Amino acid sequence: MQVYEGLAGIPVVKSSISYVDGENGILEYRGIPIQELVENSNFLELSYLLIFGKIPDENELLKFELDIKENLKYFERILDIVKSLPENLHPMKILQSLVPVFAFDDIDTDIMKEENKYRQTVRIMALVPVVIAFSKRLKEGKEIVFPDKNFYYTENFLYMLNGKSVEKIYWQTLDKTLILHAEHTINASTFTAMVVVSTLADLYACVSSAIGSLSGRLHGGANEEVYKMLSSLPNDEKIIREYIENKLKNKDKIMGFGHRIYKTYDPRAKIMKYLLENLQKEKPTPLLKKAEIFEKIALEYLEEKKIYTNIDFYSGVLYSQMGIPSDFFTTIFAMARVPGWIAHCIEYVRNNKLFRPTQVYDGGHNIHYKDIKSL
Amino acid sequence: MQVYEGLAGIPVVKSSISYVDGENGILEYRGIPIQELVENSNFLELSYLLIFGKIPDENELLKFELDIKENLKYFERILDIVKSLPENLHPMKILQSLVPVFAFDDIDTDIMKEENKYRQTVRIMALVPVVIAFSKRLKEGKEIVFPDKNFYYTENFLYMLNGKSVEKIYWQTLDKTLILHAEHTINASTFTAMVVVSTLADLYACVSSAIGSLSGRLHGGANEEVYKMLSSLPNDEKIIREYIENKLKNKDKIMGFGHRIYKTYDPRAKIMKYLLENLQKEKPTPLLKKAEIFEKIALEYLEEKKIYTNIDFYSGVLYSQMGIPSDFFTTIFAMARVPGWIAHCIEYVRNNKLFRPTQVYDGGHNIHYKDIKSL
Repeated sequence: MQVYEGLAGIPVVKSSISYVDGENGILEYRGIPIQELVENSNFLELSYLLIFGKIPDENELLKFELDIKENLKYFERILDIVKSLPENLHPMKILQSLVPVFAFDDIDTDIMKEENKYRQTVRIMALVPVVIAFSKRLKEGKEIVFPDKNFYYTENFLYMLNGKSVEKIYWQTLDKTLILHAEHTINASTFTAMVVVSTLADLYACVSSAIGSLSGRLHGGANEEVYKMLSSLPNDEKIIREYIENKLKNKDKIMGFGHRIYKTYDPRAKIMKYLLENLQKEKPTPLLKKAEIFEKIALEYLEEKKIYTNIDFYSGVLYSQMGIPSDFFTTIFAMARVPGWIAHCIEYVRNNKLFRPTQVYDGGHNIHYKDIKSL
Repeated sequence: MQVYEGLAGIPVVKSSISYVDGENGILEYRGIPIQELVENSNFLELSYLLIFGKIPDENELLKFELDIKENLKYFERILDIVKSLPENLHPMKILQSLVPVFAFDDIDTDIMKEENKYRQTVRIMALVPVVIAFSKRLKEGKEIVFPDKNFYYTENFLYMLNGKSVEKIYWQTLDKTLILHAEHTINASTFTAMVVVSTLADLYACVSSAIGSLSGRLHGGANEEVYKMLSSLPNDEKIIREYIENKLKNKDKIMGFGHRIYKTYDPRAKIMKYLLENLQKEKPTPLLKKAEIFEKIALEYLEEKKIYTNIDFYSGVLYSQMGIPSDFFTTIFAMARVPGWIAHCIEYVRNNKLFRPTQVYDGGHNIHYKDIKSL
């Protein structure tokens, strides 16, 4: 019997959340091209769209934002728990650990009830940024900055993270970046969330598990690798070219290039680059110039193989610009992907079917314990 | 394009860890019939067998046990964290939350390194029982009992849980019960662990996610339901019969009967019943008599439909006998299944292939943001 390795090409769900056309570089959320959403929407509205399947009207969006803000009240309890954790615990472990706790005193977390889906959604969206910001401040030995309800979602996040309010161009740029990362069909972490929800576990269990999946280096860690690579190189065209040629000679993968699905320029990478260039007009972006030199040289060699710049190439450059340390990059990815994970969970349980694939057994039979034990 | 609902019948891996023949009621771990293992082995030896593929010799087993005991040193740090959590948090959420923390100060958790696989394994096996016992004592407002290295694994667990050392028949019976639950091919929680490890996440991330999956009521919660059902019924044959006939008339499922795979008496249920009868010879087991009456009547109706007693029917009866509260039943299942999850993770990464199935998209295309927004 055949093993379906990695389930490549095996459809596990009918879904209307997002659509990717890798040949033509198209990404749509709920049928809307990603470019239009980045230009016109914001992360909260977009999250509502992904999760509930429609663009909210003014009242729905206001309620959604207020319900998220209401859940910030848990911040002191979150702080106590994060403080109790080991000092050097990786930020992704802190995040995976904290999300199940978001249930707090909820007795009824039954995922089949509509009010529970909504309550869990706004609570997770509210508290994930709080956990990230508190962890970062604690790790740096800096004073904790409490959430401020007057700020918009992403503005508040950067405020807690950096200890002071930041200029609009920063939080708006990050907000658009979150849109770019919010959803991307069935990847390993989204699939993890779906397998977990198929047991009718609640969204706290699902999102925590998805974070665990994202923590693997084959999934969420690529932007950190790109950043380390760029940081380690000097701003020197000749040396960068040597580095790239050396990688190609050894048939090593060049971090930040190539994508399993996109056989053309990743539409998200294009937008990310545009956002960085836009930021550069107002702010010094030291790493961007180096990244652009790197990309230009790399594409000289890769473009003919239909290998293009992916989203991870520029996202690390942008995050570092926001004061986000590189070991926190993947937590930003997680924060952005929360609505995508939740959208897939809520969609999946509507026609729920417990995941239980099978195996090809290739071991022995009827072996006796005592025969082995006496060896 | 067809959707493979729940991936039923789709092989995702070649595996030699366990084998189930549902027609003939056979369960083998590493080719050895479950009956022989329950009779001759113990949970630690069995865990080693599942994870490392061979029955350990005396030195290997001693080292394994000592390495697990060595990790009990983290108990005070575990206690601090569990104390910081919300009082009414469900035991399964506490467990899912704590496992990622087991990484403590590990900088390198790379799952591809053999020494990391081993270190993570013994640490998770050591600390899961500690978390369960501490949570239970805290929830009951009782004094915490620290682990005692002089005790065997399961003995130590019941000691911490009950606040005093327990008679051998108790911990030995529980130990055999853990063997029964340790592994059962590719179920939803094991599959969750496999999807997570396929990103090369570490075992802390994998086991935490598997616990999230087990927390869903379609997966790990059945024994708690059986226990509640039996507790709510009087010790009266007539009323029990009425209850069962009523369920059948309404085409309701009778908890504790039927299994997706076993079309005969579940071999584990048979052993579980035997263990309980054995315990009964020495100790009063008040719920057992009622369970036996219930089973006898239920099988009068169900046996002809090839529906038999499953493992969940007797496990709750046994756990309650051990002083385990019903909301902790699923944590015992988790503690027992840890070696199965780890075995599958370690086996999977040996020929790792990232899980990334696909979807059938059934939404719209090229919808414009502004057209919708202006609605």
